[in-house]
Amino acid sequence: MKKLWQKTGTKTAKIVHKYIISENLTEDQILLPYDIIASIAHVKMLNKIKILNDKEVSNIIGSLKEIYKLNEMGNFQLAGKYEDCHSAIENFLIEKLGDIGKKIHTGRSRNDQILVAIRLYTKDKIKGLEKASLSLAKQILKFSKKYEFVAMPGYTHTQQAMPSSVGQWAGNFIEALLDDLKLLQCAFSLNDQNPLGSASGFGTSINIDREETTKLLNFAKTQVNSLYCQNSRGKFESFTISSLSQLMMTLGKIANDIIWFTSYEFNFFQIDKSLTTGSSIMPQKQNLDILEVLRANVSVIMSYDFQIKTAYHNLFSGYNKDLKISKHALIESFNITLNSINVIETVFKKIKPNINKLKKSFSKDIFATDLANEMVSKGIPFREAYKQVGENLNKIKIPDLQKNLKSKISLGAPGNLGLNFYEKELLKNCNEIINF
Amino acid sequence: MKKLWQKTGTKTAKIVHKYIISENLTEDQILLPYDIIASIAHVKMLNKIKILNDKEVSNIIGSLKEIYKLNEMGNFQLAGKYEDCHSAIENFLIEKLGDIGKKIHTGRSRNDQILVAIRLYTKDKIKGLEKASLSLAKQILKFSKKYEFVAMPGYTHTQQAMPSSVGQWAGNFIEALLDDLKLLQCAFSLNDQNPLGSASGFGTSINIDREETTKLLNFAKTQVNSLYCQNSRGKFESFTISSLSQLMMTLGKIANDIIWFTSYEFNFFQIDKSLTTGSSIMPQKQNLDILEVLRANVSVIMSYDFQIKTAYHNLFSGYNKDLKISKHALIESFNITLNSINVIETVFKKIKPNINKLKKSFSKDIFATDLANEMVSKGIPFREAYKQVGENLNKIKIPDLQKNLKSKISLGAPGNLGLNFYEKELLKNCNEIINF
Amino acid sequence: MKKLWQKTGTKTAKIVHKYIISENLTEDQILLPYDIIASIAHVKMLNKIKILNDKEVSNIIGSLKEIYKLNEMGNFQLAGKYEDCHSAIENFLIEKLGDIGKKIHTGRSRNDQILVAIRLYTKDKIKGLEKASLSLAKQILKFSKKYEFVAMPGYTHTQQAMPSSVGQWAGNFIEALLDDLKLLQCAFSLNDQNPLGSASGFGTSINIDREETTKLLNFAKTQVNSLYCQNSRGKFESFTISSLSQLMMTLGKIANDIIWFTSYEFNFFQIDKSLTTGSSIMPQKQNLDILEVLRANVSVIMSYDFQIKTAYHNLFSGYNKDLKISKHALIESFNITLNSINVIETVFKKIKPNINKLKKSFSKDIFATDLANEMVSKGIPFREAYKQVGENLNKIKIPDLQKNLKSKISLGAPGNLGLNFYEKELLKNCNEIINF
Amino acid sequence: MKKLWQKTGTKTAKIVHKYIISENLTEDQILLPYDIIASIAHVKMLNKIKILNDKEVSNIIGSLKEIYKLNEMGNFQLAGKYEDCHSAIENFLIEKLGDIGKKIHTGRSRNDQILVAIRLYTKDKIKGLEKASLSLAKQILKFSKKYEFVAMPGYTHTQQAMPSSVGQWAGNFIEALLDDLKLLQCAFSLNDQNPLGSASGFGTSINIDREETTKLLNFAKTQVNSLYCQNSRGKFESFTISSLSQLMMTLGKIANDIIWFTSYEFNFFQIDKSLTTGSSIMPQKQNLDILEVLRANVSVIMSYDFQIKTAYHNLFSGYNKDLKISKHALIESFNITLNSINVIETVFKKIKPNINKLKKSFSKDIFATDLANEMVSKGIPFREAYKQVGENLNKIKIPDLQKNLKSKISLGAPGNLGLNFYEKELLKNCNEIINF
Repeated sequence: MKKLWQKTGTKTAKIVHKYIISENLTEDQILLPYDIIASIAHVKMLNKIKILNDKEVSNIIGSLKEIYKLNEMGNFQLAGKYEDCHSAIENFLIEKLGDIGKKIHTGRSRNDQILVAIRLYTKDKIKGLEKASLSLAKQILKFSKKYEFVAMPGYTHTQQAMPSSVGQWAGNFIEALLDDLKLLQCAFSLNDQNPLGSASGFGTSINIDREETTKLLNFAKTQVNSLYCQNSRGKFESFTISSLSQLMMTLGKIANDIIWFTSYEFNFFQIDKSLTTGSSIMPQKQNLDILEVLRANVSVIMSYDFQIKTAYHNLFSGYNKDLKISKHALIESFNITLNSINVIETVFKKIKPNINKLKKSFSKDIFATDLANEMVSKGIPFREAYKQVGENLNKIKIPDLQKNLKSKISLGAPGNLGLNFYEKELLKNCNEIINF
Repeated sequence: MKKLWQKTGTKTAKIVHKYIISENLTEDQILLPYDIIASIAHVKMLNKIKILNDKEVSNIIGSLKEIYKLNEMGNFQLAGKYEDCHSAIENFLIEKLGDIGKKIHTGRSRNDQILVAIRLYTKDKIKGLEKASLSLAKQILKFSKKYEFVAMPGYTHTQQAMPSSVGQWAGNFIEALLDDLKLLQCAFSLNDQNPLGSASGFGTSINIDREETTKLLNFAKTQVNSLYCQNSRGKFESFTISSLSQLMMTLGKIANDIIWFTSYEFNFFQIDKSLTTGSSIMPQKQNLDILEVLRANVSVIMSYDFQIKTAYHNLFSGYNKDLKISKHALIESFNITLNSINVIETVFKKIKPNINKLKKSFSKDIFATDLANEMVSKGIPFREAYKQVGENLNKIKIPDLQKNLKSKISLGAPGNLGLNFYEKELLKNCNEIINF
Repeated sequence: MKKLWQKTGTKTAKIVHKYIISENLTEDQILLPYDIIASIAHVKMLNKIKILNDKEVSNIIGSLKEIYKLNEMGNFQLAGKYEDCHSAIENFLIEKLGDIGKKIHTGRSRNDQILVAIRLYTKDKIKGLEKASLSLAKQILKFSKKYEFVAMPGYTHTQQAMPSSVGQWAGNFIEALLDDLKLLQCAFSLNDQNPLGSASGFGTSINIDREETTKLLNFAKTQVNSLYCQNSRGKFESFTISSLSQLMMTLGKIANDIIWFTSYEFNFFQIDKSLTTGSSIMPQKQNLDILEVLRANVSVIMSYDFQIKTAYHNLFSGYNKDLKISKHALIESFNITLNSINVIETVFKKIKPNINKLKKSFSKDIFATDLANEMVSKGIPFREAYKQVGENLNKIKIPDLQKNLKSKISLGAPGNLGLNFYEKELLKNCNEIINF
Repeated sequence: MKKLWQKTGTKTAKIVHKYIISENLTEDQILLPYDIIASIAHVKMLNKIKILNDKEVSNIIGSLKEIYKLNEMGNFQLAGKYEDCHSAIENFLIEKLGDIGKKIHTGRSRNDQILVAIRLYTKDKIKGLEKASLSLAKQILKFSKKYEFVAMPGYTHTQQAMPSSVGQWAGNFIEALLDDLKLLQCAFSLNDQNPLGSASGFGTSINIDREETTKLLNFAKTQVNSLYCQNSRGKFESFTISSLSQLMMTLGKIANDIIWFTSYEFNFFQIDKSLTTGSSIMPQKQNLDILEVLRANVSVIMSYDFQIKTAYHNLFSGYNKDLKISKHALIESFNITLNSINVIETVFKKIKPNINKLKKSFSKDIFATDLANEMVSKGIPFREAYKQVGENLNKIKIPDLQKNLKSKISLGAPGNLGLNFYEKELLKNCNEIINF
């Protein structure tokens, strides 16, 4: 393996290769297209500042596009051949273009090259997650509307608390997803800063034009201080994953609720058999493995956040190889989160409430608060009403469920879920993404 | 201890008190003023919807303000007397006003009461942190300007890499703080949603006016779905702490750098003795205990984020007492972060570079890249220049440091740090906070 | 506040006091008795090596015992007066004994003083946890025996899987606790090494006799390398808390199971009302707050482990103040774990199965595997039997539950739970603790 | 893909395959040999209890051995063909042996099958780690002896504290490794319990002989309660990884120290160039990437522990698919830890102290404590001596370093490092492993 930095006569110990270069360079293969896009911008800028002439630029960009296409067709494998995607690009250019290729690295370092590739990758992936989240939110909205007034017990402390509805249960996740979208946008904005041109972390004596690459790569701004560019490695990734973990927490709660609601004891929902798996020993089992693995994946994403933050901890300012591990953590986090959104969207397509069972599932006690409130409307102070009802729980009768739900019309209560509000919000978000 | 829910004839086991009611109710004591503010808004709304008449409202608000003042003077101790700050308020009102007091809890639950108090507290604390962060950023800006061109080695992999400056080192943290401010604003915006009126998580049959309390309490919007209000407990807190942890990571990096830079081996900075502590056995020691504890506090904040997320994991939808622990985690996180900002601000007031030592601290090798770039400007392809310099490291001569720094004028390099840009940003942020 | 190391004419900034000396020195107050015990051993050793004569020793030990007693009666408050428990001891001795007191610190540092105090504290607390765990295990054993053959569905994937029993459910936690005990013993053994005499981390030129204090303090061995003594700070604490977290995971699983089993939908168990708490708005609620907080406390303990490990991460060899935070983490972890054991023991005293409800809770499907196994006994290959049963689930009939359970006699199955084996193990463990 | 549990006419949705079956089944491929070994024991036991006759057993074992060999030669790929290693085994047997193959799953479930395979794997890997750790400890011992009295400053708070030696620095890690070995043995002992025969978690109506497989598989004991077998999944793995994290913390501290000690500013050690890597932009750089990645890997292992514990949190008793993620976490943790030991062993072979630089690296102040102790030996009380030296730091003279080190002869001090003690311990441990 040829390394950019290899000095004549020196040899790198095998254990170095083994330990620090991941065997299959999976992450670098994924980042390669983004590295190429950033390299094209870099080359154009070098042209603007007269380091490269027009012909050199056209040659280099031609070759970079060639790699891009080869890679798209699976014909540019890094594994075993290169130290990383950055070396691969330069080596390819030198082989192809000779001395011209040797100029590509002018005014940049692999340190800022990896930063900019990760930023472009991250922005791309966040946009993808936003689309998927919106699609999921729309699916849940459809579900909520369909079952808006299907009565279902509401729980606090895992105990029946007050009457609720399938619409309220499902609707609550739409609002969570809308909040999660805002956090994703916050992470996007943090990553929307161009680190290219910070070189190894201390700039370069070549008078490069950083604003030019910022413009070419469509970044909102240039990340100014070149040392900060390096110090933000790990920081931005961990914040990004932390935002993903919020989205995963929402999905995990959906998964966990459904696991319980489809249990024999609750039996509130019926899920399509095609989403269940079986047991090797118990002939009757239909398990929701996908939702259980999804729950566990919440902790996987959380652990990646923690992993990067701990690796970052007590590191001296400037580039440190420690944060290499953040590539895997980040890419895995995006993959898992996107797949998890798809799982939950499929689930909402293939699940329906057991309306009869739900009707029968209400305990009498669950209506105690409603009874107390009725007394309040007759002028009895709430604490007094509370006390009286509490001492006469056995007198409670189960009311008409539909009427009960629809009578609660304060904003966000079962009779006034505000689903239209979500619809508007979703539409607004969709338009923003389309116009992006 | 009188509990709102205590039924006649039943007794609560001692171990319940011991295990779930924190002995000194420290957190509730801190949240009490916010609970009162929210209670006043609640009462005004109950008046608007005719549950309370004008006289009742005026009586209740009078008593609420009395508690507020008593508490401010340290004369309203919860410990030992009350289950929590919510019970304290109601009990006080009932003792004082009789039946009128029994009406305060109409249309609300402790579940939304704690939520709204925490939101108000959080918004208040974030504003405080923003101010403190800006003050710190200004202090570092002053420092950066003063020592803008004091040469200092730049490091990658803990090894001398390229020439840098005290200004570049310090300036990088200003930009980090500006990013951290944006994350704080993101957390603020998440918390700027009114949960009051969601009651125990399923609304109420009383037709309360939630938009009214949203307006009275100056929230940006109402958090609609009442179940989501409950499900967002822990979620919002963990995101908030996650944002604090980003700020702490910035402070921790400053602390760690300074610990190394003030070591005997580096000796780049001199810190005022009043900030050091001594050893019980070694007469010469002057230790930076405060910066070491600050480093450790980064992990404390990180652990609070993790603690809440794990407690949240696999919880059934609706209120669960598990998230009680988030009160302590949140409040401690704010306290530690604010104190840590103050520590770093003090440090920047009491530290100065050892200019002579810094001058002598440069290795020859650190100029290798500059030399290669010089060759590039003569038309030699970068990789070629790199190779030649690499094979002739012993020929490098230390240049004029000032000239070297000032020659690097691409944005963010030592000769063009963009400090003015930060100044503008800080000013903009300050204005926003003042106008808040 | 007088500090051992304060130099004439220098002043410590207020922010240093505020930030690094915890306001109430709670942890140091708890460690004080252990510090005194170690100090007595240190003094006896100094006598043996002739640094202190008999009279000096007798004076010093007298004064140390005085502090011990004062502290026991709550009359030796550190808060506000001293930097830490170590300074308090030396200051008291000097005030009382003058020059003699100034000799106590010969050949030691606060660095090894805190280490040895924490070790003695940890050993003491682990022994306490062992006793409490055994007591809990015995309580569960009693419960398991009483309800050994009360049928109860067994679950996989939160779905009814195969018939099980209350005895099997409860018995599984006894075996977990027996494993947890072994992990506690492992943590004990790690902590059973004497660090006293390592001074600040590099020994001392005074020829102290470390084996003597090892013997006097009843440590299993001397921790040899004095630098390792310092480097093991945080390491030992995190391993200890990691062991506690295993015990907490067992308790948390018990709590979580019971929360579900006492829900309206399962209704498998009845718990005494004295262990429940109520709602401020819902008159009917009886919540298991204690078990919910216990579940959350599992994540608190886990976070303390993570906190220390992260603080330890990337620290330079030798004493660093960062690990000061481990005192709070360790002490809180012991407190919470001990209290949590007591909670679960109380719960097992106040809970009983709803035998009739349990009987009716079995689905037909849960017997599918038993049916397949019956066919196996008639010579049909298992996979074949499995298939046939799977296609005829509707033909399953609910068998006699008692007979079903008792027919499963392979070790650990419902008919052969091995409770006697636990009884022997518990007895063995009790004897070991008594003989300790 | 054929699944054991697939019912005629039902189809599994593609997303289920995609989400829960890892594309390449890497972990199952690694566990396959252990699954085969356990299967052979299971089959022999079925023979003993007359479920299988001699001929059937001989046929099945023959086929199992065939898979073992095919797999060893890389000719038994699971990916794409099977759901997991368990299904692969049964499918192979059925294809090969027809009805006989359909009997292999009698009295077991994949739930206990995966448990026993993981236990066997874990025991195997721990033994491997023990050997590697001992080999590393011996390498460090050699290094410590060679440089036992090479003087080197000792640090507290990252500041020069007291004179120390290369031997003391290196020796401290041997003692850490000896402790880590004990923790590994503790994890081994926890895993040395046979879960086979617990079936899906509730035993089986087939009267299997669990003690027989315990004996055949060389487990120390049978894990009794079949529900506990399932509840211990994740528990044992997290404790195991927690023990590995302690070993990694030791290796990480070595790595971090060496990164600093080989920096330009310290320059205490020289490391062979073959272990360094270069920069793409800075011609002079020789970076210790391997040690930086190793530091980061400490946080990776820590995060796997946290990941499993969080996934385990709040799970209902009995098998849950969530803990599937623990396979990857465990296997990666073993791989990384073993590779990391090898890295550090190589480093100790290729590093040597810069003896001259070390000699010149001592500040005068570092001898202050020695001076105070000298005064103590003349009868001055320590605190008095401390004060006087502290006020006369400028009078300190650098002593003969060798003499200084050798004069400190209390156990564990630089003049009495106890290296022989380690030698004995290492020998004892080696013997135990050989005799295993």
